[in-house]
Amino acid sequence: MSEFGFIDTIRSMFASMPFNGFEGIGDDCAVFPFGDGEALVLTTDLLAEDVHFLRRATSPFLLGRKSLAVNLSDVAAMGARPVASMLSLALPRELTGEWADEFMRGYHDMSQRYGVQLVGGDTTLSKSGLTVNVLAIGRVPAGNIKRRSDAREGDFVMVGGRLGASAEGLKDILHGNFDTAYAMQHKNPEPQVAEGIWLGTRAEVHAMMDLSDGVASDLVHILEASHVGAVVETEHVPAVTSVERAVCGGEDYKLLFTVEPEAAERLMSEYAAEFGSRPFAIGRIVASSDPVIEWRENGRAFNPDWHGFSHY
Amino acid sequence: MSEFGFIDTIRSMFASMPFNGFEGIGDDCAVFPFGDGEALVLTTDLLAEDVHFLRRATSPFLLGRKSLAVNLSDVAAMGARPVASMLSLALPRELTGEWADEFMRGYHDMSQRYGVQLVGGDTTLSKSGLTVNVLAIGRVPAGNIKRRSDAREGDFVMVGGRLGASAEGLKDILHGNFDTAYAMQHKNPEPQVAEGIWLGTRAEVHAMMDLSDGVASDLVHILEASHVGAVVETEHVPAVTSVERAVCGGEDYKLLFTVEPEAAERLMSEYAAEFGSRPFAIGRIVASSDPVIEWRENGRAFNPDWHGFSHY
Repeated sequence: MSEFGFIDTIRSMFASMPFNGFEGIGDDCAVFPFGDGEALVLTTDLLAEDVHFLRRATSPFLLGRKSLAVNLSDVAAMGARPVASMLSLALPRELTGEWADEFMRGYHDMSQRYGVQLVGGDTTLSKSGLTVNVLAIGRVPAGNIKRRSDAREGDFVMVGGRLGASAEGLKDILHGNFDTAYAMQHKNPEPQVAEGIWLGTRAEVHAMMDLSDGVASDLVHILEASHVGAVVETEHVPAVTSVERAVCGGEDYKLLFTVEPEAAERLMSEYAAEFGSRPFAIGRIVASSDPVIEWRENGRAFNPDWHGFSHY
Repeated sequence: MSEFGFIDTIRSMFASMPFNGFEGIGDDCAVFPFGDGEALVLTTDLLAEDVHFLRRATSPFLLGRKSLAVNLSDVAAMGARPVASMLSLALPRELTGEWADEFMRGYHDMSQRYGVQLVGGDTTLSKSGLTVNVLAIGRVPAGNIKRRSDAREGDFVMVGGRLGASAEGLKDILHGNFDTAYAMQHKNPEPQVAEGIWLGTRAEVHAMMDLSDGVASDLVHILEASHVGAVVETEHVPAVTSVERAVCGGEDYKLLFTVEPEAAERLMSEYAAEFGSRPFAIGRIVASSDPVIEWRENGRAFNPDWHGFSHY
C-alpha cells in the first residue's frame, strides 16, 4: 500500500472545502489559531497489533506509555506544549480487566510526566486485534509554530539526539530478544517534549519535525515542503550503530530541525546548557529544484539506496 | 466488559491533573472555550469490524458516510456546528485500493454535506480487521452549549425524530437481509446537525445529547448528570415498531433534549416550521434522588426490564 498516494487522493478530494479556521494538511499536526495569537495543534496516530507492535514483546504499561509518547513527539515537533489527549481503544475480550488497567497506568504515567489531561475517548471490544488510536492536542504561541515548509538555503540540518537505537531494538525483537537495551528504547521511547517547546521559542530555528521514519525519509518531507535540497554528511550522523540504520531506521522520535547558519553555534551551546548535550549538525540545506538528499562521506558524494522505515 | 467501570477508573486516575483549558469529561464532546465567547467541541468514535459493522452487510461508501455521521451527531448534540475531522484507518491489505477509495467517497460525501474539512489523520495496514477512528470538531458560541447536566425538574423530555428503525435494521442485517428499508436506516443514518445547531440557540432547551444507545440508557446519563429523575409515557414514544425496540434499540442518532415547560409548545411549533415536523414530547423531568426512569403506560406505572443497546 502506498500511504502517500492515498493521502494525495484524499487531499485533492477535500481541496475545495472551506478550512473553517484550520490550516491545511501537511505538517506533523493540524493547526487551529485562536484568541490573541495562540494556536491549538492536533495530531493523531493509530497503532495496530502485529503492524506497530507485537503484544507478546511488550508490556501493557509500556504500550500505554508509547501510545501517547509518539503523539506527544508530533506536538513537540510543532514547538507546542502538549495539554490534552483523547484515547480510543478496541480491546479483545481477554485484554479487558488487568491488561487494560496496566495499559492505562502506562498511559497515565506518560500523561502525568508532561501534564497532559485526558479529555475524552472511546472504548469498545474488538473481535480481532488490539487497536489504539490517540489524539494529542498542544497549545503554542502562534509565532512559535515550526513547520516543515520553513527550511531555507544555507540552514544547518540538526537532530536532537542519537539515531538508530529503536531500529536495533526492533531487529532484536524480531529475533525474539524482547529485553535488550535497544529493545527497551524501541518499546519505551522518550519524546523530546521540553526540547521542542524550547526550540519553538527560537527564531533561528526554521523548519522542524520529528523523526518517526528516519532521516532518509523524514528530511525529504521538509525538502518537499520547503522547495529545497539538502547535503547530509554521513560522518556527522550520530549513529548508535551503523549510519544506514541511523538514517533508515524508524521510531527514534528525535527532533529534526533546520537552523539559520549565523546563529547555529550559539543555539547549540545554549541547547547543551539547557538539556545536557548538544544537538548534532548533520548537513546543510541547499538550493535545489528536486527535494533530494545528497549523501556525502568525508566530502565525497555517493549514492546509497537508502529509504526511510515503513511498518508495512 | 463494563465500559463504564473502566471509564470510572480512568476518570479517577486523571482527576488530579490540570485541565489546561478543557472542561472535564462527561458530555458527548470535550469542550475547549477560546477567544471571545466561543468554544471548540471534540468527540471521537472508534468503529471496529464485526463489533460495530459487518463488512459484507454494507458498502464502503455507506460505511465512510456513517463513520463521520455518528461523530457529527455528537457534535450537534452539544449545539455546535461541525467544522473539521481527523480520520484514522487501519486497513486489511485487500481493502487498500478501490475499497478504500469508495470509503473515502462516502466520507467526503458526508463531510461536504455539512462543510466539514478533513484536517489530519493516519492510515496504516491492519493484519487483522478493519478499524476506523474518527475525531470530529465543532465550533459553538459558548452560551449555546448544551450539556447533559442541565435538565431541570418540570422540563419536557423530547426526541427529535422517530425511534427504533435502526434497531429493526440491525435485526434484519443479523438475519441476512442487508437491503431492507430499515437496514438502510441502520447503515446510513442522518445526524440531526441542523436541528442541534438550532436547538443550541434556544435558551429554553436545557440538557441535550444524542441517542446512540436508546432512551432507556441515554436518558439515564442526563438524569445522572443533572441529579433528577424522569417519567416517560410510553404511548407518546414515537416508535417505528414496538416501544421496547424504540427505547432499547441503538443507533437512531436522534436528539434527546429537555425543554422548559412554559416554552415547550412554542418551541415545538417553531421547530416544526423550521424542520417540517414537530419533535416528540415523551415525558417529564421530576425531582428524584435516584437517576431512574419511571415508565408509564396510559397513566399507569409499570416496571419493564428495559436496558439500552450495547454492541458487546
